[in-house]
Amino acid sequence: MVDAFCQLPGVGPKTAQRYAFFLVKQAPDVGRRLADAIASVQERLGFCPQCHNLAEQSASGVICAICQQPRRDQSRIMVVEEPSVIHVIEKTGEYNGLYHVLMGAISPLDGINPSHIKAAELLDRVKQGGVAEVILATNPTMEGEATALYLANQLKPLEVKVSRIACGVPVGVDLEFTDEATMTKALQGRRAV
Amino acid sequence: MVDAFCQLPGVGPKTAQRYAFFLVKQAPDVGRRLADAIASVQERLGFCPQCHNLAEQSASGVICAICQQPRRDQSRIMVVEEPSVIHVIEKTGEYNGLYHVLMGAISPLDGINPSHIKAAELLDRVKQGGVAEVILATNPTMEGEATALYLANQLKPLEVKVSRIACGVPVGVDLEFTDEATMTKALQGRRAV
Repeated sequence: MVDAFCQLPGVGPKTAQRYAFFLVKQAPDVGRRLADAIASVQERLGFCPQCHNLAEQSASGVICAICQQPRRDQSRIMVVEEPSVIHVIEKTGEYNGLYHVLMGAISPLDGINPSHIKAAELLDRVKQGGVAEVILATNPTMEGEATALYLANQLKPLEVKVSRIACGVPVGVDLEFTDEATMTKALQGRRAV
Repeated sequence: MVDAFCQLPGVGPKTAQRYAFFLVKQAPDVGRRLADAIASVQERLGFCPQCHNLAEQSASGVICAICQQPRRDQSRIMVVEEPSVIHVIEKTGEYNGLYHVLMGAISPLDGINPSHIKAAELLDRVKQGGVAEVILATNPTMEGEATALYLANQLKPLEVKVSRIACGVPVGVDLEFTDEATMTKALQGRRAV
């Protein structure tokens, strides 16, 4: 059990032992519930064939909870690097369209090129028609910006509106403690009031 | 000496004692240099009568180092809350205009209204003419946004271009860990690629 816990990110032998001793001391159903939860998620979870978000096996196959909703705006696709970002965007309540998860970002130094991420799949979705806007919400990092640039170039001939989320100073900070790169983006991206 | 050091922000009796004992142990000129530096800055520093930035007394009066430079674009004014923000913006190398320091932000809850900050002084500068753009670089906080809104309304009849620095996701972060308020701004502020 200790070896198994050690595989989790950020869990070393000491923490793993702590978890193991805790479970051993509990009533047997505490451990069984954890084991069942892990096993059932592993069995039931897959990736949505349309947007590559995490999806639960249901009567309608493995289509994800977002692609299943007919009320969502089918003409917008927000492109993100990982499924975890979808959760953050959903919490804002500002977006009602669909998503496309790339499962990574282009990073030539790490040997990750466009063929390693779900870029071709995005272009296929857009080519099928009915898409009015593609919003590039990759991370504001070197890799994320390179990925956004690559996708923007690939999407250009498809005559679809392409936009990028705003980069600038985050809400609530004191500008005195803003880094130069962010401040540069905030100045370049200033807009008329 | 301990009591005097205690007046500095973030310095309690223990840290003050540490500073005092350190100075006592040094050669006398170490303490004298610190004392002289503090005294001479207090004597020589004032506020620029034009932009309210910190300014050093010189042959030309107390005009600040930025207002003194004839090569800077005299038609742009960047409005900031505190002199410390100017340093951050200068470091980006992206801006070549003048500044206007408000010396605070509107905060009705703290009893700070427009008459307590250098708002009228800004309007006077713009009314004198020759200003093409006013860039509102107040903090992206409640107070900073309220101040930007107030100034934008006051500047409207003066027919000058008014812009606000971009609010959004800061450079280098992972979107997974972005707060809702910042993500909302990043989505609302998205721009065509």
